[in-house]
Amino acid sequence: MSVTPVPPLDRLGAARVVLARKKKLGLTWDKIAEALGHPVEWSTSALLGQQTLTREQAETAGSLLDLDPDVVDALTLPPVRGASAVDLTDPLVYRLSEMVQVYGTTISELVREEFGDGIVSAIDFELDLQRVPDPKGDRAVITLNGKFLPYRVW
Amino acid sequence: MSVTPVPPLDRLGAARVVLARKKKLGLTWDKIAEALGHPVEWSTSALLGQQTLTREQAETAGSLLDLDPDVVDALTLPPVRGASAVDLTDPLVYRLSEMVQVYGTTISELVREEFGDGIVSAIDFELDLQRVPDPKGDRAVITLNGKFLPYRVW
Amino acid sequence: MSVTPVPPLDRLGAARVVLARKKKLGLTWDKIAEALGHPVEWSTSALLGQQTLTREQAETAGSLLDLDPDVVDALTLPPVRGASAVDLTDPLVYRLSEMVQVYGTTISELVREEFGDGIVSAIDFELDLQRVPDPKGDRAVITLNGKFLPYRVW
Amino acid sequence: MSVTPVPPLDRLGAARVVLARKKKLGLTWDKIAEALGHPVEWSTSALLGQQTLTREQAETAGSLLDLDPDVVDALTLPPVRGASAVDLTDPLVYRLSEMVQVYGTTISELVREEFGDGIVSAIDFELDLQRVPDPKGDRAVITLNGKFLPYRVW
Amino acid sequence: MSVTPVPPLDRLGAARVVLARKKKLGLTWDKIAEALGHPVEWSTSALLGQQTLTREQAETAGSLLDLDPDVVDALTLPPVRGASAVDLTDPLVYRLSEMVQVYGTTISELVREEFGDGIVSAIDFELDLQRVPDPKGDRAVITLNGKFLPYRVW
Amino acid sequence: MSVTPVPPLDRLGAARVVLARKKKLGLTWDKIAEALGHPVEWSTSALLGQQTLTREQAETAGSLLDLDPDVVDALTLPPVRGASAVDLTDPLVYRLSEMVQVYGTTISELVREEFGDGIVSAIDFELDLQRVPDPKGDRAVITLNGKFLPYRVW
Amino acid sequence: MSVTPVPPLDRLGAARVVLARKKKLGLTWDKIAEALGHPVEWSTSALLGQQTLTREQAETAGSLLDLDPDVVDALTLPPVRGASAVDLTDPLVYRLSEMVQVYGTTISELVREEFGDGIVSAIDFELDLQRVPDPKGDRAVITLNGKFLPYRVW
Amino acid sequence: MSVTPVPPLDRLGAARVVLARKKKLGLTWDKIAEALGHPVEWSTSALLGQQTLTREQAETAGSLLDLDPDVVDALTLPPVRGASAVDLTDPLVYRLSEMVQVYGTTISELVREEFGDGIVSAIDFELDLQRVPDPKGDRAVITLNGKFLPYRVW
Amino acid sequence: MSVTPVPPLDRLGAARVVLARKKKLGLTWDKIAEALGHPVEWSTSALLGQQTLTREQAETAGSLLDLDPDVVDALTLPPVRGASAVDLTDPLVYRLSEMVQVYGTTISELVREEFGDGIVSAIDFELDLQRVPDPKGDRAVITLNGKFLPYRVW
Amino acid sequence: MSVTPVPPLDRLGAARVVLARKKKLGLTWDKIAEALGHPVEWSTSALLGQQTLTREQAETAGSLLDLDPDVVDALTLPPVRGASAVDLTDPLVYRLSEMVQVYGTTISELVREEFGDGIVSAIDFELDLQRVPDPKGDRAVITLNGKFLPYRVW
Repeated sequence: MSVTPVPPLDRLGAARVVLARKKKLGLTWDKIAEALGHPVEWSTSALLGQQTLTREQAETAGSLLDLDPDVVDALTLPPVRGASAVDLTDPLVYRLSEMVQVYGTTISELVREEFGDGIVSAIDFELDLQRVPDPKGDRAVITLNGKFLPYRVW
Repeated sequence: MSVTPVPPLDRLGAARVVLARKKKLGLTWDKIAEALGHPVEWSTSALLGQQTLTREQAETAGSLLDLDPDVVDALTLPPVRGASAVDLTDPLVYRLSEMVQVYGTTISELVREEFGDGIVSAIDFELDLQRVPDPKGDRAVITLNGKFLPYRVW
Repeated sequence: MSVTPVPPLDRLGAARVVLARKKKLGLTWDKIAEALGHPVEWSTSALLGQQTLTREQAETAGSLLDLDPDVVDALTLPPVRGASAVDLTDPLVYRLSEMVQVYGTTISELVREEFGDGIVSAIDFELDLQRVPDPKGDRAVITLNGKFLPYRVW
Repeated sequence: MSVTPVPPLDRLGAARVVLARKKKLGLTWDKIAEALGHPVEWSTSALLGQQTLTREQAETAGSLLDLDPDVVDALTLPPVRGASAVDLTDPLVYRLSEMVQVYGTTISELVREEFGDGIVSAIDFELDLQRVPDPKGDRAVITLNGKFLPYRVW
Repeated sequence: MSVTPVPPLDRLGAARVVLARKKKLGLTWDKIAEALGHPVEWSTSALLGQQTLTREQAETAGSLLDLDPDVVDALTLPPVRGASAVDLTDPLVYRLSEMVQVYGTTISELVREEFGDGIVSAIDFELDLQRVPDPKGDRAVITLNGKFLPYRVW
Repeated sequence: MSVTPVPPLDRLGAARVVLARKKKLGLTWDKIAEALGHPVEWSTSALLGQQTLTREQAETAGSLLDLDPDVVDALTLPPVRGASAVDLTDPLVYRLSEMVQVYGTTISELVREEFGDGIVSAIDFELDLQRVPDPKGDRAVITLNGKFLPYRVW
Repeated sequence: MSVTPVPPLDRLGAARVVLARKKKLGLTWDKIAEALGHPVEWSTSALLGQQTLTREQAETAGSLLDLDPDVVDALTLPPVRGASAVDLTDPLVYRLSEMVQVYGTTISELVREEFGDGIVSAIDFELDLQRVPDPKGDRAVITLNGKFLPYRVW
Repeated sequence: MSVTPVPPLDRLGAARVVLARKKKLGLTWDKIAEALGHPVEWSTSALLGQQTLTREQAETAGSLLDLDPDVVDALTLPPVRGASAVDLTDPLVYRLSEMVQVYGTTISELVREEFGDGIVSAIDFELDLQRVPDPKGDRAVITLNGKFLPYRVW
Repeated sequence: MSVTPVPPLDRLGAARVVLARKKKLGLTWDKIAEALGHPVEWSTSALLGQQTLTREQAETAGSLLDLDPDVVDALTLPPVRGASAVDLTDPLVYRLSEMVQVYGTTISELVREEFGDGIVSAIDFELDLQRVPDPKGDRAVITLNGKFLPYRVW
Repeated sequence: MSVTPVPPLDRLGAARVVLARKKKLGLTWDKIAEALGHPVEWSTSALLGQQTLTREQAETAGSLLDLDPDVVDALTLPPVRGASAVDLTDPLVYRLSEMVQVYGTTISELVREEFGDGIVSAIDFELDLQRVPDPKGDRAVITLNGKFLPYRVW
């Protein structure tokens, strides 16, 4: 029986290699973002596999992180944005889900009152994360910025 | 067989009465928040049943919304913050969950790099929602502001 | 113990009353749609509870279907678009889900090739259903028409 | 202990190889469809593993995509149309499921009124996807064309 | 607050009334089927709520079972064929599911070899159940008779 | 660290090898069944891993299909009849499950009326599948033949 | 709108009335079993709704427990043996499930070695529960006595 | 990149090797139990991975079954008693679960009446399985012998 | 149709009445525990429905909380300890589950090393909850005190 | 096709190697904890993968357990605290979950009464496990010590 051809490294496998190289080289996400020319939130999301990278961007990352050509290839694959991209039971991620659970109806009510019948886009969307110093303990301020999309009435 | 005593109206039932009265009286959440003396996000969350209301706050809401005493009583019950408080399959709420799905690992990575090993509190937490005008379509900017809590090393 | 105030009829309850009245009066969805001044797909969806109805539209429906004022009120409640709105195990509905299961990756591939990285909106969306005569058995042609939304690169 | 015989590449593995080769060679689905002599929707679905390919079709694809004989063999395996063929939590695919969730009862009502008691076939079925230019943003028009099958009354 | 209009009895509720009346009157399914002019399998399925009944059929059943007009009305509602129609954990029903579990791949293989790529219709379908005497214990012979539907190649 | 001993090929792995060899050799299930001396339904089920094969039967299959001794060994392992043996979301298999969903209560009612309180055995059970020509499209007639087992009253 | 006919008390409702009456009257299951003329395990199971009761048995129970005629009627309804009959997360019941989890493969192996390929019937089955005094704490000895049913080879 | 160290064979892997060796050598569980000096039920459970084996016991099994030292090591690992240890959908195992489903409330009632408020231990527990000849078909008698543990009142 | 007999208030219904009366009367759990003569943890658990109350205890609670006789009766029903007793998605309860998720394997390892193969009883168990003042924020110290139960080797 | 780069050993893989080395060397958790300079509960949790280890701590563990450099590297990876870290169906772990199920509402009530509206932190948290000798059987006393966090009112 002949040897079965192995498909190339997938996008999440590439992300694991990136994390290992980043650690080995002592790089920060800010540094990587600077090289890519995008904010750190987008850049991190892209290298973890949730955004599309152009070949140029993949090669830039490849040079900075000293990646094999196969890993650079894998970085240009389509993004992986389904449930396999995240462990929803991780305590940090879970608390984000809990915020949706506890405040989901409040956000719905306020969006409906302010904008009318529609949704806040998770596609035409930007994420921002800031550290805000606070004497009682610093705070993480996460900004979800999405375009309001009204339901089409036809 | 004697008549079974009926437990009083529960917290989510009170929320449904509030929504009906608010609509009948043509009130806005801003107006209700002003009476309660808290931001509109907290006030909406409280009247929908996810925050604790003092008796004074419940009575203020009762006067404004012309509620029966039983409904005012129900507003002072403990909050309901479990999964029954929200329909996670509602399209607007689902997109919030999808943001967590797509960006959860990115937020984890950036929090770990910036703050160290810990979580962003969903308890010592504030929610803010703003409408930001944009010529290509107005945007909803949702700010999640939570205290960073480091894992205790003992 | 005083009588607990009962919240008014909800949106899905109103839909059940509409279906009963429609049957009793021998009306068709086309006829109802004509009165509402919208295509039959949108009008049916609205009266089943998945679209927002203005008071005027609700009253038009109320006159045509001879509905009680409470039912008309309920028709103006926010739409119900979560999983409780549908039985996904109903054979007809299941086959639609199966089409998504079997052809979901094909649609993803073709949208990515033609439009780039993004999604087809279920919000800026129109539904059309036609009967197409066919000697081997008439066909139902369901058209899903959604705006392409590219992922924002920020 | 002797070497355990390894079963050949499966159908979804073959699809991953096809995607890798297609990218490497810079081919489009249209080009591949032309070689197969079928519309692009059917051809894409077949190479992704959801339709039966004859040996001739598999070899045509093999020549065009420069596939190993083992991959060509795998393309002639029975199709894989179960839930493992798709990631239902992928944002693009999810929106298709949401359309079924929101409009499933509407489609049921209209099919029942127009055709009577039955279902729309997902087997005697054609899929079509078109890009429709629109000044406010181009649209994807997905046409689901299925034969109506009445419930047999026996 | 005015009295909320109550939607009429639903189809499964009507089935429960039918079962109660059938028992009270000592009728058999055969007897009921004879009155409806259909085989006992279809007739039972229809009165349990899984087939469409015409008004004439509903009234025939109403006369035989001495049903209130509201129950007769409910019998003319659309059928309920989703998962709520059955308890899949009931031991008798479970064994049918187990047959599908154990013999599902065998049936797939044999249908593919005999008919080609397609499915056996659950819509253009007849059910038959016979008691076959056997000295080691009588047997139930359940015949599933469905039209083969080939996948359309377009 | 020494080499970890690898357990031999399992029963489902053997089934995949059988399918590959059967295709390569152009054999039919009928032909294989003839060699085994059992009906085609039992024989297919056995080679797919859901029935016990004696060593003699496994060797007969091994000769016909030109299998390695390890595969023949694996065919004598205990059968695999759990949920891992089948993909319940495959469209063909799903329709069998849907028949159970739609007709499960009907079968329960008729078995109870005809036989009394008990179940139809999935163990003392035979499966038969026939193609029945029909001018409107040939039909698959699947016969489930199980012994009635009354609940023991003790 | 006319009054909707209410279906009679169901089998599990009857069980709840039986439990209440048994407590009120200070009866034991042994006493009830004696009246029914069956072992206490079967009798308890029957009055909790998992076995068929004849009209005579239901009336015997009715006399002993001073039940309303409607409750006696309900006791003659078909048994309820699905998952709704039990709370599998109750600690006592859970431990029984855990025994199946921990010892399920052991029982399979030993049954296969001793009897061959088949199952232990849950239908042709008797349950016995004894208290066995033990100085270290009395023991409950639960005996599951089921007929071995070999898989039919056809 | 250096070679990743591979963790040793796990407990369930050891069980699969044991089953293969037992078959190859034609041993019975009784024979193995005799060597271990424990009843066959405990011994089988231990070699399948659900009980703790001492090194002496593991070596005794290793001699009898001619196991590699790595497999003997693996037999001394902690037991695996979670859901991964068993296939609950296997027909034989399922019937045990069904017994719990159908008779769970009966056992609860009788334990409560006989012993008071508590549970039957699945830890201080013995399992016994006997074949009982019966002219109508031999029976498997499974005895679950657990210590009653009363809820502590503190 | 005669009036269906209504089963008496159940245990969880009684708990809701207790909570309402406790609030109305301004009582504390400590006060209630003092009357019952048990620690506050056990007493709260008992009145919420998770422990057995004797008639004397139920009447003591009835006097203190001014309960109707039907509620006192309901307090003597068997405890409800299944999943319906708690909302596992409530944020406070969830964090307890998360502690089990994060520290479950650690507790297993340490119990195995210290005690051997067995479990910590949830039945022979006491719960204690203390507030411990701390300048950085007071702490809740929850003590789970359970008897170690070794697996029986037979 | 070039060789796909393999990502390094992950954190749970490192834990499995640690367990194997610890057993081989006959070390105890106490001994390992002493070397790390932290309590045994934290140290065990860290080596099982649920706490962050510094490089120094990883190297200390590496020396003590004679680990390869790759395993030491893996010990410095981020902790794994999601559901994959534990088998919740393992009997010992399950009993901890059952304690949450049975006593969750009691803890909620008592925390609310004593502290007000908030949660007990699973992050600012310490675990302690002690063996307490008892003539009736030694007890495991597990102390959960978490900071109370009040819901922020803003």
